Amino acid sequence: MAKDEPWLEQIAWGPDGLVPAIAQDTRSGRVLMVAWMNRESLRLTRETGRAVYWSRSRRRLWHKGEESGHIQRVCAIRLDCDGDVVLLEVEQEGGIACHTGRERCFYRQLDEAGRWIETDPILKDPEAIYGGGR
Amino acid sequence: MAKDEPWLEQIAWGPDGLVPAIAQDTRSGRVLMVAWMNRESLRLTRETGRAVYWSRSRRRLWHKGEESGHIQRVCAIRLDCDGDVVLLEVEQEGGIACHTGRERCFYRQLDEAGRWIETDPILKDPEAIYGGGR
Repeated sequence: MAKDEPWLEQIAWGPDGLVPAIAQDTRSGRVLMVAWMNRESLRLTRETGRAVYWSRSRRRLWHKGEESGHIQRVCAIRLDCDGDVVLLEVEQEGGIACHTGRERCFYRQLDEAGRWIETDPILKDPEAIYGGGR
Repeated sequence: MAKDEPWLEQIAWGPDGLVPAIAQDTRSGRVLMVAWMNRESLRLTRETGRAVYWSRSRRRLWHKGEESGHIQRVCAIRLDCDGDVVLLEVEQEGGIACHTGRERCFYRQLDEAGRWIETDPILKDPEAIYGGGR
């Protein structure tokens, strides 16, 4: 597979075979989240046009939105100068990227007193997103 | 020090004491770069209002712009839901974040044929930024 896809080999995969991937909303420009990718997840992301990550906790491919429906349509795939970070420009289905029901995972901001303040509202109750059995 | 700064202890530092930090330009909204931070670099970033990273290759604090002059003024410090990625909203001095002399490190984009295409121009020759002796 790798031989047929030299673009994947131009990436400086970490010793664990992973690189971090940033998802940025194309419309708002907001940085939504950071997750991890291996070769297969990035290959599938390109092939399907939807973000596929590698879940380190579950040790399996994670088709973003597979439970929540909050898929990410990928408009562009970018790579940094060192080749070890991927940037996805995405359209976020439902306007919710975070498992807490917020638009983005970066919903906390440090205030002047040195406290992390939650600045973003919960748009949808996680129980309603994932079901109460979770 | 840590006891006086509980906000630092709310971060899920990796086993190496580091977390990735994304720098995003507040004006253009562009994701400029990703680097690493330890407690001291993040503490100094807050204290000085300028981005300070931890250089993994040089194993020392890296005051962004110390050689190039391309400092980053920090407008906001954000944290993600897992507490293991930092997002800096910055004003980029000189409009150049990348050591290649480009605005951002993410200057390559995957095209439909599966090739990484350089989409962003070099704004300033790196030799002019860092001097020929580098």
